[in-house]
Amino acid sequence: MNLEERIRFARGDAEVDLVLTNCYVVDVLSGRIHPAQIAIADGIIVGLDSGYRARKTIDLKGKYLAPGLIDCHVHIESSMVSVQEFAGTIMPRGTTSVIIDCHEIGNVMGIAGIRYMMDSAAKVPLDIFFMLPSCVPATPFETSGAVLEAADLKPLIDEPAVLGLGELMNFPGTIAGDPGVLAKLELFKDMLVDGHAPSLTGKDLTAYIAAGPDSDHECTNAGEAEEKLQKGMYIFMREGTAARNLLDLLPVMNAENSSRCCLCTDDRLPGDLLKRGDIDSMLRMAVDAGVSPVTAIQMATINTARRFGLRDRGAVAAGYRADLVVFEDLEKLGVRMVLKGGDMVAEGGELKIAMGEEPAVLSSTFNVAEFNSEKLRVPASGKNARVIGVIPDQIVTKALSLEVRIEGDLAVADMKKDILKIAVVERHAGTGNVGLGFVQGFGLTRGALASSVAHDSHNIVVVGASDEDMAAAVEKIIQMDGGQVVATGGEAVASLALPIAGLMSPISAQEVAAKLQKLNSSAADIGCKLGDPFIAMSFLALPVIPELKLTDRGLVDVKKFELVPLFVD
Amino acid sequence: MNLEERIRFARGDAEVDLVLTNCYVVDVLSGRIHPAQIAIADGIIVGLDSGYRARKTIDLKGKYLAPGLIDCHVHIESSMVSVQEFAGTIMPRGTTSVIIDCHEIGNVMGIAGIRYMMDSAAKVPLDIFFMLPSCVPATPFETSGAVLEAADLKPLIDEPAVLGLGELMNFPGTIAGDPGVLAKLELFKDMLVDGHAPSLTGKDLTAYIAAGPDSDHECTNAGEAEEKLQKGMYIFMREGTAARNLLDLLPVMNAENSSRCCLCTDDRLPGDLLKRGDIDSMLRMAVDAGVSPVTAIQMATINTARRFGLRDRGAVAAGYRADLVVFEDLEKLGVRMVLKGGDMVAEGGELKIAMGEEPAVLSSTFNVAEFNSEKLRVPASGKNARVIGVIPDQIVTKALSLEVRIEGDLAVADMKKDILKIAVVERHAGTGNVGLGFVQGFGLTRGALASSVAHDSHNIVVVGASDEDMAAAVEKIIQMDGGQVVATGGEAVASLALPIAGLMSPISAQEVAAKLQKLNSSAADIGCKLGDPFIAMSFLALPVIPELKLTDRGLVDVKKFELVPLFVD
Repeated sequence: MNLEERIRFARGDAEVDLVLTNCYVVDVLSGRIHPAQIAIADGIIVGLDSGYRARKTIDLKGKYLAPGLIDCHVHIESSMVSVQEFAGTIMPRGTTSVIIDCHEIGNVMGIAGIRYMMDSAAKVPLDIFFMLPSCVPATPFETSGAVLEAADLKPLIDEPAVLGLGELMNFPGTIAGDPGVLAKLELFKDMLVDGHAPSLTGKDLTAYIAAGPDSDHECTNAGEAEEKLQKGMYIFMREGTAARNLLDLLPVMNAENSSRCCLCTDDRLPGDLLKRGDIDSMLRMAVDAGVSPVTAIQMATINTARRFGLRDRGAVAAGYRADLVVFEDLEKLGVRMVLKGGDMVAEGGELKIAMGEEPAVLSSTFNVAEFNSEKLRVPASGKNARVIGVIPDQIVTKALSLEVRIEGDLAVADMKKDILKIAVVERHAGTGNVGLGFVQGFGLTRGALASSVAHDSHNIVVVGASDEDMAAAVEKIIQMDGGQVVATGGEAVASLALPIAGLMSPISAQEVAAKLQKLNSSAADIGCKLGDPFIAMSFLALPVIPELKLTDRGLVDVKKFELVPLFVD
Repeated sequence: MNLEERIRFARGDAEVDLVLTNCYVVDVLSGRIHPAQIAIADGIIVGLDSGYRARKTIDLKGKYLAPGLIDCHVHIESSMVSVQEFAGTIMPRGTTSVIIDCHEIGNVMGIAGIRYMMDSAAKVPLDIFFMLPSCVPATPFETSGAVLEAADLKPLIDEPAVLGLGELMNFPGTIAGDPGVLAKLELFKDMLVDGHAPSLTGKDLTAYIAAGPDSDHECTNAGEAEEKLQKGMYIFMREGTAARNLLDLLPVMNAENSSRCCLCTDDRLPGDLLKRGDIDSMLRMAVDAGVSPVTAIQMATINTARRFGLRDRGAVAAGYRADLVVFEDLEKLGVRMVLKGGDMVAEGGELKIAMGEEPAVLSSTFNVAEFNSEKLRVPASGKNARVIGVIPDQIVTKALSLEVRIEGDLAVADMKKDILKIAVVERHAGTGNVGLGFVQGFGLTRGALASSVAHDSHNIVVVGASDEDMAAAVEKIIQMDGGQVVATGGEAVASLALPIAGLMSPISAQEVAAKLQKLNSSAADIGCKLGDPFIAMSFLALPVIPELKLTDRGLVDVKKFELVPLFVD
């Protein structure tokens, strides 16, 4: 549709594709709710008055029409399904645009992984915008599948879907003026930069913001959000599967600052998306907490569109894309209907169109040197070892020092004291690296758990009571080209294959959710005390979160930010 | 200051240039007012905490610190002074950035006029951004000094100060799909387009917005503003010398839409700027009317910065430009101090720095074919003439049909019935065009008034009781290379020279204001009943404002949008 045609449609001089009648617009621009008829041609809103001739008319029966929802920060990889399945899962819940940072697949496959996500994104009706991964790998203490410097990112910045640089997790490096970080900030100085600055405050926070990042999705309390707002950041309020901050952050909001607040899910597991929902679930929480429906919907639409410079969406207005959600009411905010570019995408929670082609098959991302249980042997070079202390429902750990059980010249798992063995098996470069350590808190009495989802380098992490079961679990993962496994008696008793980069599955979200449930119950069967051991395990190899973590290169004391020996004596 | 230095300053590791202590920040981001210390280095805000070492410290003694004010839409030419003098007049009042549309000088000099404004803008501390003139000339019924098509504007769009296309006054052409207008909208489709759509409503308004313009500064009531907000426009609330809309528009504003409302002056005469002030006067009006100081200041700072994509200003935050205003209090909002890029610009209303060099001298823009009183003769080709009926304090006119006085074979002015002669003398191309007509409402009993400020083509407009005085006034204007004149007894008795394009004076705002006062009192001396006859006169040649107007080519019936004969019989 060229400009002349668009004007002709808007004037009412040509028959439009679709008219929506008998609805109330939740008007995020005027801040009011008013009756309207909406005329749509070629995917664009061309009329907001009555009297347009249309090929098709839908009577919305007095329901509420809002702009399609936008998630301002999400990692699709965390849904563990393909881009297609992710789109098909969230679009019936009203989300029509997402801003993603694909740094998980970026750590595994580098630019090829980002390109894979872009290619997949181009094939789905969901609009997917990219903030490029800023910190691959997260630290120098691990072997990732790729290293992305400014020069590597440069060829991607002119891609139309790229809006800027993704969450800049390396805030210590930024504040310290690390040349690699500064080179990236220079490259993106005319684009957007998303921040990631948990608990950063005072002059350090000012320095970080002055360097470029002007958003943050890591606030956990209103005071932290207030300082970040004051210093120049947009506040992305997060409600993920694990990290749930929305209700703690709403108190910072007032009439004068709400336009700088947006909503994001960051990381949600498929079962959570299916049960709670997506951004729509955050609207319900906010409204329940006393936020006006208009303000809540603004946080998920126009506020995000404005932050990201997406001038064609985020409102029901002239010339905007016809990305629309019909809500049953403004209290429970049930999604009745979703339109994308004027096309019916979902009705009553059911998808009405295909989400494009099958996901492209990716070749294996696994390159593991010969592996067997001997690689898991820990020579007893001391009595007291550094042990990772898991804290239930948290991603921080305690750095413990405990006496470990010795058998012959080997240190072994000690189920009586719940000191299990943990290993991180390098799987990208065939280095043969196996980081070894001990962990307390899982409670396994036998068997092993393993996963190729292990932030951020996504090597294979395995925790177990027996070297044989640990080896069996790792071998099963390699055989599946990635996944999650519970093994006991020398074989896998539950598994989920994640052949897309070792992170995502090509099967449906329902099936993935069911398999995850089976993995958790199988873990419980072998004694696991954690509610979601695979989430806990996925952060045990991330050496930017205190206190003690394990990579393929060994134990990392995160506070000292250095590799440390296993034994203290 | 490179990024590394900026970070070092922000960390507090290097001595900054200036620290402002003991103040309350009017925080347009968090919407709150809080005590702060502000550290500034190299013109940038690098600290918002205490404890920075500084070369200089200013104790603000508990006053209120706000971001520098931004005027979202102003024609500098309307101030009738040079860019330097304009900057020196408004900066002590707190305005540190303006977005201008120089379509007055554009109509006179075309691209050379715009370049002249850009060159002048580059020399003053005020930051001046450009929206390029979209409608030069305003109509095909007049002779302007230039015609600017899309191809003419194209070489300017990459200039760093250019943000988009200025107020698109040709809304009928836009809605009708005029190819010249569409070509401009195509050229600016990735930039900003400001609208100008007085009273436009319904499908026509939708068509206009769908074509590109997403702001409007012509609303005169809350209902009009509400429809424009709903359909996608930012509302630029205006308070000019003549057009005063702010108080009528404030009722449209609520907590959910205020971020889409901005403040502008559009056109202010120098006396008005000196007496009432600039954007600061609008803050006082808004607060008096019940708007919270934070919201009012947001409308003049961050809201405008966000609309125009000016990410480096509009707030007191990390990495933002140190464009700052210190207010005495938040009720009367007296401006105590103004800083631009961290430099003291004004204190207690007095400029503390020079506004750059003297304005560059422009060569004459006058090219008038031989002129004398014979050119003003109106052959009596009928009895009843179309007469422009002036309505006090309005720019719309009535189209009257009145019997005119005949002397011999000529129609002449009739002071008893207050039917004066009006002429528009073409002054750009030497065509010799003189548009002739009659006007009622000025009340002159003798003499004549003339001006080279005559929107939008700025030919010479002259109104008089005597052909000889009219000719004397026109000749004086030509001799001065532009200006405004009151003539009686065959000579000028008051005058203001406007040699910068026939629109602006190189002398001070105070002097210009004094001369304008003298012009008005001299006009009153010869019987003028209008309070500000030169403003009224300046719109009599603008054939986009109903009902009857006169150009160098003759009378224009604005509703029919066509040239019409002087006599009706």
